[in-house]
Amino acid sequence: MQSAAELGAAPAEAFQAAVGHCYEKSPWIAERAHAQAAPFDSLTAVEAALWEVVSSATEEEQLALLNAHPDLAGKAALAGELTSDSTEEQRRAGLNSLTPEEMARFTEMNTAYKAKYGFPFILAIRNATKRTILGAYETRLRNSRGVELAACLAQVRKIAWMRLRMVAAPAPTGKLTCHVLDTCRGCPAANMTVTLRYLGGSSDSGDDAPAVVGEFVTNSDGRLDGPALAGAAFKEGQYEWTFGVGEYFAVAGVPTSGTPFLAEVPIRFGIDNPEQHYHVPLLCSPWSFSTYRGS
Amino acid sequence: MQSAAELGAAPAEAFQAAVGHCYEKSPWIAERAHAQAAPFDSLTAVEAALWEVVSSATEEEQLALLNAHPDLAGKAALAGELTSDSTEEQRRAGLNSLTPEEMARFTEMNTAYKAKYGFPFILAIRNATKRTILGAYETRLRNSRGVELAACLAQVRKIAWMRLRMVAAPAPTGKLTCHVLDTCRGCPAANMTVTLRYLGGSSDSGDDAPAVVGEFVTNSDGRLDGPALAGAAFKEGQYEWTFGVGEYFAVAGVPTSGTPFLAEVPIRFGIDNPEQHYHVPLLCSPWSFSTYRGS
Amino acid sequence: MQSAAELGAAPAEAFQAAVGHCYEKSPWIAERAHAQAAPFDSLTAVEAALWEVVSSATEEEQLALLNAHPDLAGKAALAGELTSDSTEEQRRAGLNSLTPEEMARFTEMNTAYKAKYGFPFILAIRNATKRTILGAYETRLRNSRGVELAACLAQVRKIAWMRLRMVAAPAPTGKLTCHVLDTCRGCPAANMTVTLRYLGGSSDSGDDAPAVVGEFVTNSDGRLDGPALAGAAFKEGQYEWTFGVGEYFAVAGVPTSGTPFLAEVPIRFGIDNPEQHYHVPLLCSPWSFSTYRGS
Amino acid sequence: MQSAAELGAAPAEAFQAAVGHCYEKSPWIAERAHAQAAPFDSLTAVEAALWEVVSSATEEEQLALLNAHPDLAGKAALAGELTSDSTEEQRRAGLNSLTPEEMARFTEMNTAYKAKYGFPFILAIRNATKRTILGAYETRLRNSRGVELAACLAQVRKIAWMRLRMVAAPAPTGKLTCHVLDTCRGCPAANMTVTLRYLGGSSDSGDDAPAVVGEFVTNSDGRLDGPALAGAAFKEGQYEWTFGVGEYFAVAGVPTSGTPFLAEVPIRFGIDNPEQHYHVPLLCSPWSFSTYRGS
Repeated sequence: MQSAAELGAAPAEAFQAAVGHCYEKSPWIAERAHAQAAPFDSLTAVEAALWEVVSSATEEEQLALLNAHPDLAGKAALAGELTSDSTEEQRRAGLNSLTPEEMARFTEMNTAYKAKYGFPFILAIRNATKRTILGAYETRLRNSRGVELAACLAQVRKIAWMRLRMVAAPAPTGKLTCHVLDTCRGCPAANMTVTLRYLGGSSDSGDDAPAVVGEFVTNSDGRLDGPALAGAAFKEGQYEWTFGVGEYFAVAGVPTSGTPFLAEVPIRFGIDNPEQHYHVPLLCSPWSFSTYRGS
Repeated sequence: MQSAAELGAAPAEAFQAAVGHCYEKSPWIAERAHAQAAPFDSLTAVEAALWEVVSSATEEEQLALLNAHPDLAGKAALAGELTSDSTEEQRRAGLNSLTPEEMARFTEMNTAYKAKYGFPFILAIRNATKRTILGAYETRLRNSRGVELAACLAQVRKIAWMRLRMVAAPAPTGKLTCHVLDTCRGCPAANMTVTLRYLGGSSDSGDDAPAVVGEFVTNSDGRLDGPALAGAAFKEGQYEWTFGVGEYFAVAGVPTSGTPFLAEVPIRFGIDNPEQHYHVPLLCSPWSFSTYRGS
Repeated sequence: MQSAAELGAAPAEAFQAAVGHCYEKSPWIAERAHAQAAPFDSLTAVEAALWEVVSSATEEEQLALLNAHPDLAGKAALAGELTSDSTEEQRRAGLNSLTPEEMARFTEMNTAYKAKYGFPFILAIRNATKRTILGAYETRLRNSRGVELAACLAQVRKIAWMRLRMVAAPAPTGKLTCHVLDTCRGCPAANMTVTLRYLGGSSDSGDDAPAVVGEFVTNSDGRLDGPALAGAAFKEGQYEWTFGVGEYFAVAGVPTSGTPFLAEVPIRFGIDNPEQHYHVPLLCSPWSFSTYRGS
Repeated sequence: MQSAAELGAAPAEAFQAAVGHCYEKSPWIAERAHAQAAPFDSLTAVEAALWEVVSSATEEEQLALLNAHPDLAGKAALAGELTSDSTEEQRRAGLNSLTPEEMARFTEMNTAYKAKYGFPFILAIRNATKRTILGAYETRLRNSRGVELAACLAQVRKIAWMRLRMVAAPAPTGKLTCHVLDTCRGCPAANMTVTLRYLGGSSDSGDDAPAVVGEFVTNSDGRLDGPALAGAAFKEGQYEWTFGVGEYFAVAGVPTSGTPFLAEVPIRFGIDNPEQHYHVPLLCSPWSFSTYRGS
């Protein structure tokens, strides 16, 4: 796979060949983005330029983009006419194995949606299930057309980003950091064990097996001594911290129950853009904890 | 196994036979507790009566109780003279397989502790590791004698509770409940999937395999329609909720990233006293969550 | 002021006279709402019916509604031609005392906004400042037309609700409740002092002076023994709890610093719809706290 | 007032004259601390050295220290024989104006406490009220003697620190920082207004009037551009942040209610040791917020 730097420096034709498919059947988006903003130093910059083209396009162009997308589980899928990207995405959501009843429900919803808004229902389905999709249909059919136009464009943007991530490796600018605070005693939680596991990514490539990717002990400020992951080792996917909270409070002499309410605390989180900094801290007492995407 | 009600109604001799061993080599505690407070309607009430005896005993009696405990990994263990409860507890903490260096370190700490305070270091070790125990030695050797006397009695209390739980089944008064709030939109999180898994208990009995014990969908108030577990089904051990946070926000149309920061959110927690009510809620946005023991 | 029940039962003409002005110069909204859904048992129900008319109106009707609104600080204001509702709302936001530079900036933004979207910028300004309004212009000028159409309708909805609240007293269905949990010890915070102050409402009526409206002590479940406010006593406006957190932990013997990090903890919050239940709890340790709108 | 550096460098006699009174009628503590650890570079270091003497003293010496303290509201107070420090501290807690019934209750509690433990009940009362003190009596009379010995020593330590702060100005090493995160959108909260008020300190000096001490706007990382207070400007006392949360979300276009649930959010907190770093952040959505002492 080429690097983000290689892609970003590519001439128009090569860029087009690599990126043109990210927005479904709408190669004009990559074309304009390259013309307006190349070169790029990151996938993030490529993505921003593509989206700038979409969001400043005319409403006619935006509608054409939306209408280039197949119905979810629709006729094109039955007829085997989807792009390979779309086929794969629909397969992963389980849409290739619908029961006849489910297929009827999808068709009904698709029809109602298209009739109301004039463009097909779009959902970035790589992480979705049939239940999610049917729930989203119901929610979104209550919205105004303007809201749905914006929502479908936002979904299309997510799909393009997922496809773009498979085109080139991210720039090595991202990192993952941690911080643990003891809210019971009002201090950094020092000397706590922290394990980081990679649980797998969105793609189907074979090197994605779940694995421990780091074992740490917090320092006197409650932090790891450096990023838990950075550069090429930091990739899209699901991760999980496990914090030794029970042991920490037992060592500290803070009263807990015999079977502690919190022993090994997992925090599961997803990395969408490995070119960014993700700070994922833990605030904990023996009886409560919280986490958030920090900065 | 007898019920809490049967144990609580037992005459002095049978009560003594069942409960006398809970406080190490100190049958006088169960004797006095029965005389003062029987009958009992729950393990919680038995435990409270036992502890009342301990906490109102003279300091000489308290010291005798502490001194009835073996050194962790000490001479009695080497000589095979521990009570079967203690042997089992030390084995589970890995103390039967110490390296010579570890054994030397434990002996050194034991000696320092006993020299400073006049009683042995005690830690409820059923959930501890060698690392925890050595860390706790270092923290606790900095305390005053009064603090350590209280700390060791608190540990002995935990050990007695763990042993008591194996004597009789808990009264069926406990339950586990849940509530999910959407902090992004300021409302109950309705229609979210919640799975409850039992991850195993402290005892070694064979019926403790991890298992899904409940699958739920939150109602319009963000709650399950009743307790997730109650009565006999609610037992000591480790549990884990898994909340379908990513799907919930996707259906709601709240913007998230393509690989969501929060998709399936696990909350792992321990139940120490299955006769009580444990309320374990989730507050979540697409980018943060927290939990706590509620009421 | 009439009651929500009286308003809800009013015949078409009286309803129209009372409610017709809530959506600016668009009496057809109240007309249709009454025809479709009267009678109503609450202001909440009236509001929902009005909004249902707006959201299911044609895009032409929606645009007419938006275009019935004056520019913020625009020509109509200068010429004294605003409705009295609008005049008052603009005065409260400080828009009647703009400097010439500020007036020029408002005019410039108004013009840019209207040119881009075809309808005027609308913001429910009763709680806004000049800084808010100018910041919002900049954010919103980056949105797509569909998003802004929806956003302006949402603002118009808020304005209508504020006006409706002045038409009739709310139905006495709302209440305010509280719950305090001690996250340091994992239990309800019993016996904590809680004071409730009313800090004033959005209207200018003279009976709005800040005042202590309740003094409480939490019970053994960490709750007040009933609602802090309910029925007619529960009205729109800003409120503030003050929790005696420092005293609570001092009494409990939980270690704190001499000047405690948390002593008297204020939680200031707004009530928008006094017909609803607002649950505003506190989770606290000596070193952290959180609150949220619960249920 | 001398500086911490001047005090820390003072020869034994001057140090003794300045610090000897901090532990009630126990000048030997300052004497030993100076002999063991002088010179000192901060009040924190002086305090640590004093406490090291106390915590490593014999139990007889510790009991002598505790017994040097007057009963709260006891005979010495009635007879006007208290040290001036104690007189002032008891006056501030309202103990010089007890009703006869209250006086009787205090006397009863004092007597019970002293009879059970052999030393007087001690509470750092500068921030306490009669209600706190009576509540603490009840809690603490349930403890074991060792726990109470440790608790009274911890209270004496707090009292000494409060007195020491009046002896010399703190070293200018402390600072106050802030960080605001938007948990609704998972990003730093940029461009939010933050006001810092000083609400007063523990001492009675006349320069303590409440005042705005800083007005800020968060930068793109959600932080202030530097410490809100540092060095000599950072002193013991109560402070309050006010965050413009309502305006922030209005500008961002995040949906809120017309009267927002959160508009101006106050966070009130105490600074005990102005030589330290206090990080007091805000995590907020339109419907929830939390804070904690960070690092």
